[in-house]
Amino acid sequence: MSTKNIQVGIIGGAGYTGGELIRLLIHHPQVTVNFIHSRSQAGKPVANTHQDLLGDTDLQFTDDLSALTNGSIDVLFLCLGHGESKKFVAENTIHDNIKIIDLANDFRLQANAVAGNRTFVYGLPELNKAAIQQAQNIANPGCFATAIQVGLLPLAQAGLLGEVYTTGITGSTGAGQSLSATSHFSWRANNIQAYKTLTHQHLGEIVQSISQLNGAAETRGGINFVPWRGDFTRGIFISSQLNSDLSLPELQTLYKEFYADAAFTHISDEPIFLKQVVNTNKAIIQLEKVGTKLVVHSAIDNLLKGASGQAVQNMNLMFGVEERTGLGLKPGGF
Amino acid sequence: MSTKNIQVGIIGGAGYTGGELIRLLIHHPQVTVNFIHSRSQAGKPVANTHQDLLGDTDLQFTDDLSALTNGSIDVLFLCLGHGESKKFVAENTIHDNIKIIDLANDFRLQANAVAGNRTFVYGLPELNKAAIQQAQNIANPGCFATAIQVGLLPLAQAGLLGEVYTTGITGSTGAGQSLSATSHFSWRANNIQAYKTLTHQHLGEIVQSISQLNGAAETRGGINFVPWRGDFTRGIFISSQLNSDLSLPELQTLYKEFYADAAFTHISDEPIFLKQVVNTNKAIIQLEKVGTKLVVHSAIDNLLKGASGQAVQNMNLMFGVEERTGLGLKPGGF
Amino acid sequence: MSTKNIQVGIIGGAGYTGGELIRLLIHHPQVTVNFIHSRSQAGKPVANTHQDLLGDTDLQFTDDLSALTNGSIDVLFLCLGHGESKKFVAENTIHDNIKIIDLANDFRLQANAVAGNRTFVYGLPELNKAAIQQAQNIANPGCFATAIQVGLLPLAQAGLLGEVYTTGITGSTGAGQSLSATSHFSWRANNIQAYKTLTHQHLGEIVQSISQLNGAAETRGGINFVPWRGDFTRGIFISSQLNSDLSLPELQTLYKEFYADAAFTHISDEPIFLKQVVNTNKAIIQLEKVGTKLVVHSAIDNLLKGASGQAVQNMNLMFGVEERTGLGLKPGGF
Amino acid sequence: MSTKNIQVGIIGGAGYTGGELIRLLIHHPQVTVNFIHSRSQAGKPVANTHQDLLGDTDLQFTDDLSALTNGSIDVLFLCLGHGESKKFVAENTIHDNIKIIDLANDFRLQANAVAGNRTFVYGLPELNKAAIQQAQNIANPGCFATAIQVGLLPLAQAGLLGEVYTTGITGSTGAGQSLSATSHFSWRANNIQAYKTLTHQHLGEIVQSISQLNGAAETRGGINFVPWRGDFTRGIFISSQLNSDLSLPELQTLYKEFYADAAFTHISDEPIFLKQVVNTNKAIIQLEKVGTKLVVHSAIDNLLKGASGQAVQNMNLMFGVEERTGLGLKPGGF
Repeated sequence: MSTKNIQVGIIGGAGYTGGELIRLLIHHPQVTVNFIHSRSQAGKPVANTHQDLLGDTDLQFTDDLSALTNGSIDVLFLCLGHGESKKFVAENTIHDNIKIIDLANDFRLQANAVAGNRTFVYGLPELNKAAIQQAQNIANPGCFATAIQVGLLPLAQAGLLGEVYTTGITGSTGAGQSLSATSHFSWRANNIQAYKTLTHQHLGEIVQSISQLNGAAETRGGINFVPWRGDFTRGIFISSQLNSDLSLPELQTLYKEFYADAAFTHISDEPIFLKQVVNTNKAIIQLEKVGTKLVVHSAIDNLLKGASGQAVQNMNLMFGVEERTGLGLKPGGF
Repeated sequence: MSTKNIQVGIIGGAGYTGGELIRLLIHHPQVTVNFIHSRSQAGKPVANTHQDLLGDTDLQFTDDLSALTNGSIDVLFLCLGHGESKKFVAENTIHDNIKIIDLANDFRLQANAVAGNRTFVYGLPELNKAAIQQAQNIANPGCFATAIQVGLLPLAQAGLLGEVYTTGITGSTGAGQSLSATSHFSWRANNIQAYKTLTHQHLGEIVQSISQLNGAAETRGGINFVPWRGDFTRGIFISSQLNSDLSLPELQTLYKEFYADAAFTHISDEPIFLKQVVNTNKAIIQLEKVGTKLVVHSAIDNLLKGASGQAVQNMNLMFGVEERTGLGLKPGGF
Repeated sequence: MSTKNIQVGIIGGAGYTGGELIRLLIHHPQVTVNFIHSRSQAGKPVANTHQDLLGDTDLQFTDDLSALTNGSIDVLFLCLGHGESKKFVAENTIHDNIKIIDLANDFRLQANAVAGNRTFVYGLPELNKAAIQQAQNIANPGCFATAIQVGLLPLAQAGLLGEVYTTGITGSTGAGQSLSATSHFSWRANNIQAYKTLTHQHLGEIVQSISQLNGAAETRGGINFVPWRGDFTRGIFISSQLNSDLSLPELQTLYKEFYADAAFTHISDEPIFLKQVVNTNKAIIQLEKVGTKLVVHSAIDNLLKGASGQAVQNMNLMFGVEERTGLGLKPGGF
Repeated sequence: MSTKNIQVGIIGGAGYTGGELIRLLIHHPQVTVNFIHSRSQAGKPVANTHQDLLGDTDLQFTDDLSALTNGSIDVLFLCLGHGESKKFVAENTIHDNIKIIDLANDFRLQANAVAGNRTFVYGLPELNKAAIQQAQNIANPGCFATAIQVGLLPLAQAGLLGEVYTTGITGSTGAGQSLSATSHFSWRANNIQAYKTLTHQHLGEIVQSISQLNGAAETRGGINFVPWRGDFTRGIFISSQLNSDLSLPELQTLYKEFYADAAFTHISDEPIFLKQVVNTNKAIIQLEKVGTKLVVHSAIDNLLKGASGQAVQNMNLMFGVEERTGLGLKPGGF
């Protein structure tokens, strides 16, 4: 085992993805959490905000950003609202030696991937592992984007991806911790609603990845995606329908070969369900075929493989640490 | 108001649909529940099995079927497992004057709609209201079948229905009260799973209805349907994706005209959600259009508009009672 | 059946209890909803706010209060935040002929029960039915207060109520529709928390009722009450522990006699559970005895028997309408 | 760090506690899972039964028990139904060198703690840490018993524990994976019910522990306990009411001193909630005082601190491994 010690700084540690990152990193054997920045909570114990950390850590939030320039950290995680990462990078001097992993959507599209002298690599290990290992800066993928892509990438690489009709359902943590009518328990409990029908902001990064593998995807169909709000807190479940000339065994072989080296992505021969992945960094996939129609089911935990877990996976790859380190999580199970 | 008094018999009153029917009929102003048959519970109070009826009714289950021949009832509801209705009708003498409403799937397809001298009309009022008013026997539609059809019938009638990609999610009561691994609370809570992918048994009746309106539907595409198990008890939410050349206003006009006379089916201009219909007999529909793609969302309560509520609606139509009678239900709301 | 037509006005119709009251009153056979006041929603359809009423009503909110003075209504329901009812009554001229039913806690304690020339009767029919029938003004009881009292009143009347240790759990609608950290779905789902331990604001009205029946209750012990936040939307479940010298059969007789005339309160010989009463106006009670210890379980729907349903029950009593009218609700069941 | 490698065998690996134990032990850095016994699943992959372990382990169930005699394991976990552990120990020859940790209730009471030449130590580290470190055999405490005891032990040790009125709520996994009416999702969702009122089987071990510290507890009052079934899968939340002459600061000092060395038990100065401990091995406690009344709230995860997590904690203590090893679990959080 490498004895590397990675000094980590976190910007925006009071939110959902920041909290989940802290929950992971305090147990990561090769990480020291150097600082956790929060303007609103500066000086207060992290366990006051993330109360499930009672007894696990004495860390406090800080508003001191001197570590950005004095070289005391190796990597900086940005857990900010969408649009704020770009601002943060522009407004702060960050030492060139510090790697950045951004969990927002600011740098995911190639058109937005350059900020000053930094270029961001799209951090989906199933697509870009080699580039991630060399990267100085990572744009961590979106949660729905991750769940949908893992279900489609093998077909895209094989040039076999036509038009796709996708429905996906997400837990309430996908919407962050801000209060809104649709985040009220009285509304959301036992409820289902579609939102951002065919216009979800993750479609851009999905199409970009597919095009990277399968140049003409857009002209051959595209991804029609209907997201639903689910009445649970964690997880994303996806069913994508499309045409395919391959048989089920051919498809299973294609997928298993594509993911042979994936640390967290698995093809199941049995019916999958959401809770198989909740509280883990895994992505699971199940294929079904009836006539010419293929249905690809996939599932992830939106806060882990869909956010903070994948960010740690990317950090491991960037620092030459074994990819699963700190991510051998006990599933919630129930 | 008509002063009609409808004498009702129920076969299979101990299950979910039987219980829901009892909950409705004991408050129906023009119904007397003559008997509720249950072999297993004969002699015991109905409120022992359906415990939420404590204080609401003194009715007891009976195993006496003499009312089937002595003319003391006007209508018989069959709330039996799929396949058992056909057997029940074959094995019992039922007076010709007694109307039958079957809640199972035994008589829904035209190929199965005749049993002895009885012919069953498919009891979807949005499709067959005139026939239902004249019918002696009703095959009450399936829950998913109802929810999907109300979203597609206007297009089918207009001859504009092409291939459809549908995802639907159902509550646990859709699977009945038998115990199984996927009905265990520890499994189902906070979980999602696909099942019967592209092969759900309701596809037959859906395609039959569409063909009735839009003869060549099957040849023009068909319905690709992925059902999901949801982590709630009541309700079905559907999103169907398809191509359409009509504009959104044209589509909304088409739908509103089609449902102008529908007692319980409404088009919403606002985003819909499942709990708008839970504990009601309503079906609600929302249309969204992006580019050439149309998405039709629809929602019902699977035990009411998807089963026992629609059965009472059919009874009202058959007996010339105002269609909404006994179905002015307070929504659960939360 | 009486042919009375009761003209109703509602103040504060946009909140939870206002919405639930509207859901009840639009189906009440002897009520006409004359106006629903909401400053924030004036001019908009009621079904825009209470979206489950889509297709059920064309009523609109109004900010016109002229009905308060012109005699066009018979009864006014106040569905305002605690403290605002007193202000509303002080600041508005309300015709003397108009009865008032207040759902807040402003007038529940005798020390606060007089406002101008109006005196408010505590509207718990199980305690004060005769007074309610004669009342011009009603202070509708609190939800926890109702659930706890129905479990203790028979003992209090018999002079047998000593010190009580009570735990109760409430659904999220008990806290109203305002957004807060503990009303966020991500927090409340699958969670339990105690709050207002031993200091809940309903203790005052509970002790007042017990004293009314059992003068020295306070000096003999008092009610020690720990409320919990539950991870469901509707309902209250209570377990009260106390000493009793009576046998279980003696206790059951005592309770059944006390509630012999109660329209909605029932003693169950079987184990009770919360969903027996959800979406109904019922209160149910179960007694258990081990050694000298008595445990009284009770359950209600906090928005119905604990708020708007009891308000309608009180209205029925005040206007000489059969007590159950408009409250023969289909239970949610599941 | 010790380099100890503990060879583990598991009997009854197909159930809930067996599964949770496997989830923990496959990531424990000083454990090798030697075998997992299941008669019904022999030869099949463990991940077929515990499907959330897909990709995490290639272990298979076995029906081969030769390791019990050939000395290839160091410790045996019994994850059997209550009553079956005693039978298993009687019917199988188990090498004297093998330590046993029983998760059932067979050996918890001193009257039952001897089986052949084995004597079982009650494995609550907060009570018996020194004895556990020396023990050859452990009777792992019950889930409710653990949650209630951690809230009362400091008072018992101080001789200050009088009569206690306790209410507790448990998740569905507390009842195991067998199917029953009250484990059906349609019943349990959004529901609450009391059961085993004042007669729960864990009372024996609770009273035994209190007597061990505070000899006359039983004669001075006893524990009156009302358990509730909750509508969530994991966790136990307790509120115990009792009289106390100590002030809140005195009580907090008493508790903090008692748990100064506890690895997983923490006193919170803030209001606690169930999800702080879900998916962790922690027990958390909050004290509140009003007048002479003390309320102690406590919470654990019933499958971890209440079962398999505590079993691993006991194993660590027995083998001289740091107590927290393998138990630094990421909380579920949401």
